[in-house]
Amino acid sequence: MKPSRYEEAGVSIDAQDRAIAQIKSHVNSTQTDRVLSDIGSFGGLLDIRFPEMQYPVLVSSADGVGTKLKIAFDADRHDTVGQCLVNHCIDDILVQGARPLFFMDYVATGKLRPDVVADVVAGMAVACRESGLAILGGEMAEMPGFYNAGEYDVAGFIVGVVDKAKLLGADRVRKGQKLIGLASTGLHTNGYSLARKIIFEECGLKLDDLVPGTEARVDDALLAVHRSYFKALEPHLEVDRIQAMAHITGGGFLDNLPRVLPADLDASIDTGAYEVPPLFRFLVERGGVEREEAYRVFNMGIGMILVVDEAQQEALMADLEQAGMAPCALGDIVAGEGKVQLR
Amino acid sequence: MKPSRYEEAGVSIDAQDRAIAQIKSHVNSTQTDRVLSDIGSFGGLLDIRFPEMQYPVLVSSADGVGTKLKIAFDADRHDTVGQCLVNHCIDDILVQGARPLFFMDYVATGKLRPDVVADVVAGMAVACRESGLAILGGEMAEMPGFYNAGEYDVAGFIVGVVDKAKLLGADRVRKGQKLIGLASTGLHTNGYSLARKIIFEECGLKLDDLVPGTEARVDDALLAVHRSYFKALEPHLEVDRIQAMAHITGGGFLDNLPRVLPADLDASIDTGAYEVPPLFRFLVERGGVEREEAYRVFNMGIGMILVVDEAQQEALMADLEQAGMAPCALGDIVAGEGKVQLR
Repeated sequence: MKPSRYEEAGVSIDAQDRAIAQIKSHVNSTQTDRVLSDIGSFGGLLDIRFPEMQYPVLVSSADGVGTKLKIAFDADRHDTVGQCLVNHCIDDILVQGARPLFFMDYVATGKLRPDVVADVVAGMAVACRESGLAILGGEMAEMPGFYNAGEYDVAGFIVGVVDKAKLLGADRVRKGQKLIGLASTGLHTNGYSLARKIIFEECGLKLDDLVPGTEARVDDALLAVHRSYFKALEPHLEVDRIQAMAHITGGGFLDNLPRVLPADLDASIDTGAYEVPPLFRFLVERGGVEREEAYRVFNMGIGMILVVDEAQQEALMADLEQAGMAPCALGDIVAGEGKVQLR
Repeated sequence: MKPSRYEEAGVSIDAQDRAIAQIKSHVNSTQTDRVLSDIGSFGGLLDIRFPEMQYPVLVSSADGVGTKLKIAFDADRHDTVGQCLVNHCIDDILVQGARPLFFMDYVATGKLRPDVVADVVAGMAVACRESGLAILGGEMAEMPGFYNAGEYDVAGFIVGVVDKAKLLGADRVRKGQKLIGLASTGLHTNGYSLARKIIFEECGLKLDDLVPGTEARVDDALLAVHRSYFKALEPHLEVDRIQAMAHITGGGFLDNLPRVLPADLDASIDTGAYEVPPLFRFLVERGGVEREEAYRVFNMGIGMILVVDEAQQEALMADLEQAGMAPCALGDIVAGEGKVQLR
């Protein structure tokens, strides 16, 4: 059978149909009681009646995975980046006190490989099931000439909800409050362009080498899944134990913490409050990354920072220790001008 | 001043800051009464109290612009693709009866050019203002090595709302109802890979040549903005005059109309009901595109198809004629098996 004119132009409706068939079960595995639509309808439908809330507010965010994808391409492992994307999105709205409702994705390739896209979406589904949100829809674009062979890009979009009175943020931050840092699982989704340059170009390491000073292979360390803090923090949000939170993504401590600081307060960080994980020590030392830049480009082992009243700190840290978040007493809110002080 | 290690790796936080400064006014120009957040907070906040509705349902969709972007790159005109993206998203949820609430974008490049990203976002803002939705947030990703120099990809996410009783779709479609076709402005956002192959590779046309049989330049014809049908259709949705709608995007008449057909009814299309615009006639003839494939790859001059009760058809067409939608009596809902018949 001769290929259609459309297929000659590099777009395979057939490959799209096969990909959709493969991802359907992953997507369906995430459906929640609030979802009113099936995959394949034009738009995804979600029930937004919240009788338990006084003033429901949607909280939304868009994100990508960045050049962490290059590690997935090189390792030919596509099952973790979808988890990273969803968890990144979850954490981005969690800092305002929101619980996630649904997620949508955009996956773009030059030449669609249904198995690869299915792996990516399977990862998204894992993360969505873990945190109880639905994949409500998505777009799969085959764009000849846009991406290198075997490569793709992926974007995610999340919507959550919070009752307005429970919104977290700068207006609840006071002098004397305490900072709690929660451990990251690795680079999460930031600093990969620099990390790749240091690890592969400058140190000449391979994916199956060990990260110096650790027992972890380079590919495993770099593909480690971005952590979702939702399950660990949800019980504490319910009872209003947290005043503000900063998700440590692009911009690190230095650009993210100020987003929850009033103009007259600083966050004073005790950088010795926890042991910087070996991966970050290696990157900073071998890469010659200056201290200030390190705390801007990398998360340095802390993926989330909570601002809490002093009276709550001890009990909260004990609970979060139990939840496996390796909390540390990271510092204090002090008089200042909306900046971060690295002690 | 020596560049930072991060900048050596190809990522410029400074370029990002400049781009954000440039797009801020565009984004702010779209804010609506429902928006409770500022640009720069972690997530965008939206008031979702709808006291006028019995059962508010969110309708969401994700989309891209596809290889129409290549025309924007070649013509170095970046102000229309953002409009296309927003309008595509609006039309995708409009078919379920939803009015748009907010939009978020993802823009990814290899090397960030703040002016270009600002033009893209300015286009999004134009379309958002026209249809009354807010840009609630977005992500701008600089990913060295992912995109060709001067190129980018863009994805959009939209959320709208509809009262459940006013949801449109297949369950409201009955035998004897009528189809109304509304004119597209051109290719909208589909079929560009094939159109580019025919126009540039096979016919050797240039961007500033005229499309054969028309007075329009190739670049203008191919960059024509995807039409939003929201403003023209909103008054009719309010009074429940439309039963179902199909947005004619990828898959054309043949794959999109069946999404609103019950299993025992067909859509019988009178392909002679309107004059196929010269651009499509040229593509089909010069490209040797078979008839069935033409109606699957291209919109063939019809961007939206409405299903209405016969009693409503005449008044609706008169109103839509006035609104500049060039409506045509495109056919009927007849007994069948959920398929499209091209007469």
